[in-house]
Amino acid sequence: MNKRLTFHLIGNVLRMAGALMALPVLVSLIERSGDTIPLLLSMLIAMAAGTLLALIQPRRDTLRPREGFAVVAFSWILVSFFGGLPFYFSGYVPSLVDCFFETVSGFTTTGATILTDVEALPKGLLFWRSFTHWAGGMGVLVLSLALIPKMGARSIHLMRAESPGPSTDKLVPRVANNAKILYGIYVGLSALMVVALLLCGLNLYDSVVHMFGAAGTGGFGTYADSIAHFDSAAVDVVVGVFMALFGVNFSLYYFLLKRNWKTALGNSELRWYWCILLGASAIVAVNILPLYGRNFFTALRYSFFQCSSIMTTTGYATADFDKWPQLSRSLLVVLMFIGASAGSTGGGIKVIRLQLLLKSMVRDIRRTVHPKSVNTVKLDGHTVDESILSGVGGFFFAYILVLLASLLVVSLDGFTFETNFTAVVATLSNIGPGLGMVGPVGNYAAFSDVSKIVLSMCMLIGRLEIFPILMLFAPSAWKH
Amino acid sequence: MNKRLTFHLIGNVLRMAGALMALPVLVSLIERSGDTIPLLLSMLIAMAAGTLLALIQPRRDTLRPREGFAVVAFSWILVSFFGGLPFYFSGYVPSLVDCFFETVSGFTTTGATILTDVEALPKGLLFWRSFTHWAGGMGVLVLSLALIPKMGARSIHLMRAESPGPSTDKLVPRVANNAKILYGIYVGLSALMVVALLLCGLNLYDSVVHMFGAAGTGGFGTYADSIAHFDSAAVDVVVGVFMALFGVNFSLYYFLLKRNWKTALGNSELRWYWCILLGASAIVAVNILPLYGRNFFTALRYSFFQCSSIMTTTGYATADFDKWPQLSRSLLVVLMFIGASAGSTGGGIKVIRLQLLLKSMVRDIRRTVHPKSVNTVKLDGHTVDESILSGVGGFFFAYILVLLASLLVVSLDGFTFETNFTAVVATLSNIGPGLGMVGPVGNYAAFSDVSKIVLSMCMLIGRLEIFPILMLFAPSAWKH
Repeated sequence: MNKRLTFHLIGNVLRMAGALMALPVLVSLIERSGDTIPLLLSMLIAMAAGTLLALIQPRRDTLRPREGFAVVAFSWILVSFFGGLPFYFSGYVPSLVDCFFETVSGFTTTGATILTDVEALPKGLLFWRSFTHWAGGMGVLVLSLALIPKMGARSIHLMRAESPGPSTDKLVPRVANNAKILYGIYVGLSALMVVALLLCGLNLYDSVVHMFGAAGTGGFGTYADSIAHFDSAAVDVVVGVFMALFGVNFSLYYFLLKRNWKTALGNSELRWYWCILLGASAIVAVNILPLYGRNFFTALRYSFFQCSSIMTTTGYATADFDKWPQLSRSLLVVLMFIGASAGSTGGGIKVIRLQLLLKSMVRDIRRTVHPKSVNTVKLDGHTVDESILSGVGGFFFAYILVLLASLLVVSLDGFTFETNFTAVVATLSNIGPGLGMVGPVGNYAAFSDVSKIVLSMCMLIGRLEIFPILMLFAPSAWKH
Repeated sequence: MNKRLTFHLIGNVLRMAGALMALPVLVSLIERSGDTIPLLLSMLIAMAAGTLLALIQPRRDTLRPREGFAVVAFSWILVSFFGGLPFYFSGYVPSLVDCFFETVSGFTTTGATILTDVEALPKGLLFWRSFTHWAGGMGVLVLSLALIPKMGARSIHLMRAESPGPSTDKLVPRVANNAKILYGIYVGLSALMVVALLLCGLNLYDSVVHMFGAAGTGGFGTYADSIAHFDSAAVDVVVGVFMALFGVNFSLYYFLLKRNWKTALGNSELRWYWCILLGASAIVAVNILPLYGRNFFTALRYSFFQCSSIMTTTGYATADFDKWPQLSRSLLVVLMFIGASAGSTGGGIKVIRLQLLLKSMVRDIRRTVHPKSVNTVKLDGHTVDESILSGVGGFFFAYILVLLASLLVVSLDGFTFETNFTAVVATLSNIGPGLGMVGPVGNYAAFSDVSKIVLSMCMLIGRLEIFPILMLFAPSAWKH
């Protein structure tokens, strides 16, 4: 392990994350919300700590996969710790574990909260809380790669370790340019959404903050009743559709802009994604029809929003889906497992992995029936390498393993099986709300510190797709 | 598909299953329990139907894997249907779907029941109900292979399709002799258990019937409160230990008898199996300590029995574990996933698959850290073939997929998430009781017919290890 280079890069990321706090400082000054000092103090501490770490100069410049994973894992943990300081200094969240949980939840775009009264917080803090979603959505490191020229010269291992999905497409040869293109698309879509929300009549602050939550597929809002607060069909449609758009592989938008229609629209993950989303919305709409005066369009308004919110792993709510019939509740749990597309800001297992797992299964059955046949798995016309298939299988097992192991620890707190199970799934898939106590009108405040740390790890494991975090526990990674 | 051979073999199996009903007929005559006529009638119908099917003479004798799977899948479905007729004719179970559910539950050694008052049934029917566990435990087809010389001459594909575990060891070259050796061990262990129960003071009928449930790792009993009825520490220990013994790979007993100690005791699945079982028992014992007057040995009596019962997928109960603290409940759910050893009568994912999945995962992490290293997965000193690893991964995904899909259908009935989720896991892993409504003092009576059929399919899919049943839906299996 090239430790000096690892520390140096982590320091750069932390310094940049600290610099990002200038934004909420500015907001708090403009809004005169009285939380400037805790924000400014945290910003200075984070930047100082980052600068100190960055002072460690590497002797060699070689960045191998293991350094890439270590930089990503530790950067995320440190950024979440320092990013949580404003809540602590302001006195609104007196427990450091709670501050860490809330900020991990922000950066990993989970949206699970320990706040029992979100509306009590001042506007600067709430802006920062939602902004962590936006920064974490595309990746804190991808942002660094885009912004810090020196880091951009490094290898693709950093981007790979942070980007969701079984493989990372390089759109253009230079890693730094890739990061810039992706961020450009992200900024563009985000700006569009803010304009749409302004047109719906929201003020600028609400538009920007709720755009952060949707763009990062996070789900933090500023009101106790989430998007239901606006009580507007137009807002529901805008947020619902934009969430779905942010759950699409961003590379496809690049191909669209390049007018490469065939690659963009012929993508099978995209088709599956929309089929699952619209299919689930239709089933839920029929299932909840009696709750909405048997009006199909009203039911569809709520079902599409909720399916989009859960499948993209955002977690916004326009209805208390915890009170919906069991079929809808179970279907939402299944959507939690599936998640959004690879290369999007969403979490979960990802549609493309589901496709590959299904295709492998069909291949296995075919092999059993015709043992002599040679079968390869194809996706979008290309043969999928066996090592990718075995990697996807390993990812799936690791996901379920982390789920069951975390379930055991969280069960110590004594809440119901439904609460424990969905709390773990909702954090591991970076959704936020689950069922029962952690449902859309509930929160994670009542869990013990041990459970909160385990659930924080679930969020990080989910966002970084398991291996960077698990690798931290592998002794062989630390050997010279 | 060689359909004539398939029908011919299914007919043979069905005729033999019909002949097995002679046993409960005999019991009902001895016990004068008044259920001789429905049992005798069902026996004659099953034997007649089997004989008719067996009359179809195959033109070719080639048995390929696809015929093997089809014979196994249809045999199990037909045997369960005809085996359920005594309940129907006797009038105790007026719904044919319920009869099918109960008998599938018997043959698959699940032990999930739709009976709300088991003690109301006469002794002949209860004997038959428990005997299906014993017959299904080692496999209806393995029994046919052992008993019908003509079938024994066929290929190993039949035995492979029915035997649990990722690979089937051939102990001796001839398939029929393999089946005889395994049944010999099975009969021997069963006889030992009956003697042990008689020594505990149970009468012969109770001893034999409860041996059936333990040996097949099924769980049907004759009392509403299961093994708790006897209220005896000795019975708890005998049943608990024997359940655990029946959850071990039977091949290891063969090696023990051959005094091949190294192979028998050096087996890593055996070590893992006992470590998980004893570890879980210890954790549950500590967790339920307050419920048993802080007496560790009393707590251990109940925790070991329950962990052994659930991990071996038997489902007997000496306590209402649904009322235990959440950690114990969640741990039991995790044990439901794991299941027993390959080559035993138990169900679930199986310990050896868990080992292989874990080893693959560690290999994946190692590969990520050191991309150039060549890593193979080893078990008991042998390199595991990549096709077995990918098969195990496929099995695991298929298991979770069937679980989530069934969860959706069962949710339509509107019971709680906990009930639905554990009902599916408890049937898919062939355990029987779950949590909530299907807990140890509950039953499956309240589910709709649709759910009962789906759960019956889960039991068959679990017992036959997924692919034989899924294959029935693969069009390519039916082509010439």
